[in-house]
Amino acid sequence: MSKESALIAALRSIATHPAARGLQDDCAVLDFGGETMILTHDMMVEGVHWLPGQDMADVAWKLVATNLSDLAAKGAEPVGVLLGFTLGKDDTRFLHGLDEALTAFCVPLLGGDTVSANGPRSLGLTALGRATSHPVPDRRGASPADTLWLTGPVGAAMLGFEALRDNTTADSTAFRRPQPRLAEGRALAPIATAMMDVSDGLLIDASRIAQASNVTFAIDSATVPFPANLPPARKDEAMRWGDDYELLFTLPPGAHPPIQAHRIGTATVPSSNPITVDGAVPHGPLGYTHD
Amino acid sequence: MSKESALIAALRSIATHPAARGLQDDCAVLDFGGETMILTHDMMVEGVHWLPGQDMADVAWKLVATNLSDLAAKGAEPVGVLLGFTLGKDDTRFLHGLDEALTAFCVPLLGGDTVSANGPRSLGLTALGRATSHPVPDRRGASPADTLWLTGPVGAAMLGFEALRDNTTADSTAFRRPQPRLAEGRALAPIATAMMDVSDGLLIDASRIAQASNVTFAIDSATVPFPANLPPARKDEAMRWGDDYELLFTLPPGAHPPIQAHRIGTATVPSSNPITVDGAVPHGPLGYTHD
Repeated sequence: MSKESALIAALRSIATHPAARGLQDDCAVLDFGGETMILTHDMMVEGVHWLPGQDMADVAWKLVATNLSDLAAKGAEPVGVLLGFTLGKDDTRFLHGLDEALTAFCVPLLGGDTVSANGPRSLGLTALGRATSHPVPDRRGASPADTLWLTGPVGAAMLGFEALRDNTTADSTAFRRPQPRLAEGRALAPIATAMMDVSDGLLIDASRIAQASNVTFAIDSATVPFPANLPPARKDEAMRWGDDYELLFTLPPGAHPPIQAHRIGTATVPSSNPITVDGAVPHGPLGYTHD
Repeated sequence: MSKESALIAALRSIATHPAARGLQDDCAVLDFGGETMILTHDMMVEGVHWLPGQDMADVAWKLVATNLSDLAAKGAEPVGVLLGFTLGKDDTRFLHGLDEALTAFCVPLLGGDTVSANGPRSLGLTALGRATSHPVPDRRGASPADTLWLTGPVGAAMLGFEALRDNTTADSTAFRRPQPRLAEGRALAPIATAMMDVSDGLLIDASRIAQASNVTFAIDSATVPFPANLPPARKDEAMRWGDDYELLFTLPPGAHPPIQAHRIGTATVPSSNPITVDGAVPHGPLGYTHD
């Protein structure tokens, strides 16, 4: 989840300390002791980030996984999480899912706080990681002629969301239980010139790298991976939906990724638009924005 | 704000990683990069932790100050904060107070997240600090014959809350703008045998140190400092109200604090009750609990 609102821009504007140098990305980068810590804090709100009535075990999993996905995009190794939890219905299910996620990703719960409140519940998670590669990858390093890559398909979370919302027999796992690409992120961090996770939609997130790096990406939609069960007519939609948490990254010309990934485009000198798809400027919203 | 609910106990029970060794206190203690990081995450909810209609600048100040107070009790130097913010009314006032607090306490905003939600707003803050003294003080180190001390009066926040609630001309600063005892905490950390901040009430917080340390505290109410304008009949209430964020700590027999503080009691071998006040076991709730 990125932070594009006017408020966070204002919050950033008062973060003038040198320690805040990572703020232009989703994560903060903090030198502490002799190492580099990566920090991220994301919130989830009932009815916004999860469906009312959804299994709280899945909500817990997603809260952990999406924060760890931010660490993955930095090539960071998770160190621990702190939880801000609003007590409510199905707390036991939440705990169960939290335990599953912490176990699956080998990350300890370091602490947190619980509160009681009426109305829609909100949850917050702070995730801490240790940088494994320096400089820590961010969105700013892509150059013209770099190649653009994606670790896996986009659109699976969209189909999973629809299965859950419409209560069909289709598989909703991709929406409920995203997998942060932690191993992939650590393998890529030493060679990626720019990297982020696809949380808000492939097209908008590619635009963000393009704008931060001052390049334009020419994306070839025929090379973008999609889930096998995606109707071909929905490919454009799948590139804008988000929530897939694959890694989107650039490599220098001629370089190949050390993990499985799909080359989906090329960086060029900046033009009037941050991205083109099949040679044309895409119309309409490129993805989810947090305004 | 401590975390005494059944849920956080369950959350703690799944935090089995060695890095979670600080969980029995409010703060997590994490070895990172050859140094020791202190971490805390506290939430505030509209209508629970602040009055509806209260100046959001004061709410922002308190959110920062109460988290830094947790760091103060560890003798930690603040390193940065991450904010989880629910957008709503008076965001500009919130930003103003946040800026004031970050400036006053010389701590940078490292990052965070914003969400939109209906209903009562909730806020979360994660504060990070660097330990300045080892071992890091916690609640477990008091021994029989240790002396019990308090850095300043209790009851001022209670009077401030009432002034604000009842819209009187009395001073509400102590409730609205608490001061974390950061310098005092750093001065005390090398010599205090146990330490915490008084967030939930002097009597309940003293009980927590007593129980964690396996001692009983004999508190002499005549030596407890109170604000000058507290009616004498309300001293008992002031010892249970909380929100004052003074430091409560123990010293070895004969030791004197390097900063101004009030000696309010003595530790003895454990009896059937964690504290006595003027020789008797106090009746009724000792303070605020988060159940």
